[in-house]
Amino acid sequence: MAKPLILISNDDGITSSGIRKLVELMTTIGEVVVVAPDSPQSGMGHAITVGDTLRLVKTNVFGDILAYKCSGTPADCIKLAKHEVLKGRKVDLVVSGINHGSNTSISVLYSGTMSAAIEGAIEGGPAIGFSLCDFSWNADFSHVDEYVLQITRQTLINGIPKGIALNVNIPPKQNEKIRGIKVCRQANARWEEEFDKRLDPHGRDYYWMIGNFVNHDKGEDNDEWAINNNFVSIVPCQFDLTGHHAITHLNESWEL
Amino acid sequence: MAKPLILISNDDGITSSGIRKLVELMTTIGEVVVVAPDSPQSGMGHAITVGDTLRLVKTNVFGDILAYKCSGTPADCIKLAKHEVLKGRKVDLVVSGINHGSNTSISVLYSGTMSAAIEGAIEGGPAIGFSLCDFSWNADFSHVDEYVLQITRQTLINGIPKGIALNVNIPPKQNEKIRGIKVCRQANARWEEEFDKRLDPHGRDYYWMIGNFVNHDKGEDNDEWAINNNFVSIVPCQFDLTGHHAITHLNESWEL
Repeated sequence: MAKPLILISNDDGITSSGIRKLVELMTTIGEVVVVAPDSPQSGMGHAITVGDTLRLVKTNVFGDILAYKCSGTPADCIKLAKHEVLKGRKVDLVVSGINHGSNTSISVLYSGTMSAAIEGAIEGGPAIGFSLCDFSWNADFSHVDEYVLQITRQTLINGIPKGIALNVNIPPKQNEKIRGIKVCRQANARWEEEFDKRLDPHGRDYYWMIGNFVNHDKGEDNDEWAINNNFVSIVPCQFDLTGHHAITHLNESWEL
Repeated sequence: MAKPLILISNDDGITSSGIRKLVELMTTIGEVVVVAPDSPQSGMGHAITVGDTLRLVKTNVFGDILAYKCSGTPADCIKLAKHEVLKGRKVDLVVSGINHGSNTSISVLYSGTMSAAIEGAIEGGPAIGFSLCDFSWNADFSHVDEYVLQITRQTLINGIPKGIALNVNIPPKQNEKIRGIKVCRQANARWEEEFDKRLDPHGRDYYWMIGNFVNHDKGEDNDEWAINNNFVSIVPCQFDLTGHHAITHLNESWEL
C-alpha cells in the first residue's frame, strides 16, 4: 500500500517546537508535506486573506521534507497547499499543531490550529488538530507520541465521518501517566475578558486583552473534564453550524 | 417599557454604508451603541487580537449616537464594547452588518460579520448578523428595511434559543419584490479556490486568492436556495461545534 499523503500546518508558526514534533511523528506514518505560517497566528480563528497578497516560500527547515512557509493564516495555508503545492494531489490526512496551549471548549472557535483542520475537512478529507495544554514556548512534548500516533492511525484505518475534523487536546506532562483517550463533546465554558488599559508614550489609550477561562459545565462527558482528569480528549467538530432545534423554535414561535 | 439596548458592529468598517443603514433602522427600535472596526475586516472569521494592542476611539460619525471605532477584529469589538464601553450593562441584542456581500452557506465560517454576532451569542444574549447579497461598495440597501425591522422585532419579542446567533441573508435588489422570509439550514456549498500567481517588481512570487463558490446542495430548505429564489434566509447558527453523530461513530468503530 502506498504511504498516505499527510499535509501538516499549524498556527504557532513553522519554527515552533510543536510542529517539529508533529513532522517527526507523521514521517513514521506517511509522506509529509508542510505548509505553515511564517509567523505566529494564534487566535486567528477561521480568518482568510481576501484583501491582501500571499507569499509562499520553500524552506529547508525540515531537511529533505517538502516544506513551505506562508505569510497567511492557517486556513490560507491549507488552501495554498492544495492548489499551489500539491496541485490537486489527493491529501489523505490534514494534521495541524501541535498547538502550544489548550483548544478545548469554546477556544475551538478562536483557534488557528483548528481552523487549518476544519479547512481540511471542508476540502473533503479527514483532519485532526492536536493541542498540548501547555502554553509555554518550550512546552514538554515528550509524553505525546503514543497518543498522536494512535489517533492518527485510527483516523487513517477506521476513518472519520464526512464533514468532521477532530479537536484533540492532550494534558500537560505530569507525574501521573495519562489515563487514556476520551471522545467528548465541547464543554460549555467560555472566556470572560478583561482589558488592561494603558497610556502610550503619546498619552493615548490602548488595551491588552486578558482572558479568564470560566467553565460552566458540570458534565463529565466534555473535553474540559477530560483534560482536568488527565485524559486525552477528542471532540469531533462540524462546520455545519445549523442549530436544527432552533429552526423548530423559530418556525413555531415567530411571526414571519 | 425601557428601550432595548442594541449593540451594533460589522466587518466592513465603521464608515461603510451597510452599518449606516443598520444604525438608522435600529434607532427606531432601541438605544443604540456602536463599536465597529476602523478598517475593513472581511474574511476575518472568528479572529481575536491576542498578541497585539487594541485601540478604541470615540467617533461622532453617527452624530449623537455613542460610537467607537476599534483597531481590532469584529469579535474584539464585541468584547471591548461589553467590558470597556458598556461596563457590564446588559445588552438586549447584538446586531452586526449589514454586510456588503453574501454570508450564506460555508461563508459563515469566514465571515467577520457573523463572528461579531456569534460573539454576542457567546456572551449570552440574542444576536443577528445581517448580510445583503451584493458585494458592491455602493450596494442598494433601499429594499431591506422591512425585513431587518421584522426580524429584529421578532427576536426581541419572541426570542432565540440560548447559544444561537441568526445568520440573515437578504437578496440583492431586483425588479421582483422579495417573496418572503425562510428559516433554513446552512447549504452544503463551499469555495473552491484558485490562486492568481504574479511576480512582484523584485522578481518574487506572490498570490491573490480567488474563490469560486460551488453549490453541492440539491435541497430546497437551505439558505442558498432561499437567496436564489428571492427569499430572505435565516439560519440559526450554534457555536457548539460538536458533531454528536460522530461521537457514536468513533466510540463504535475506533480502537481506543
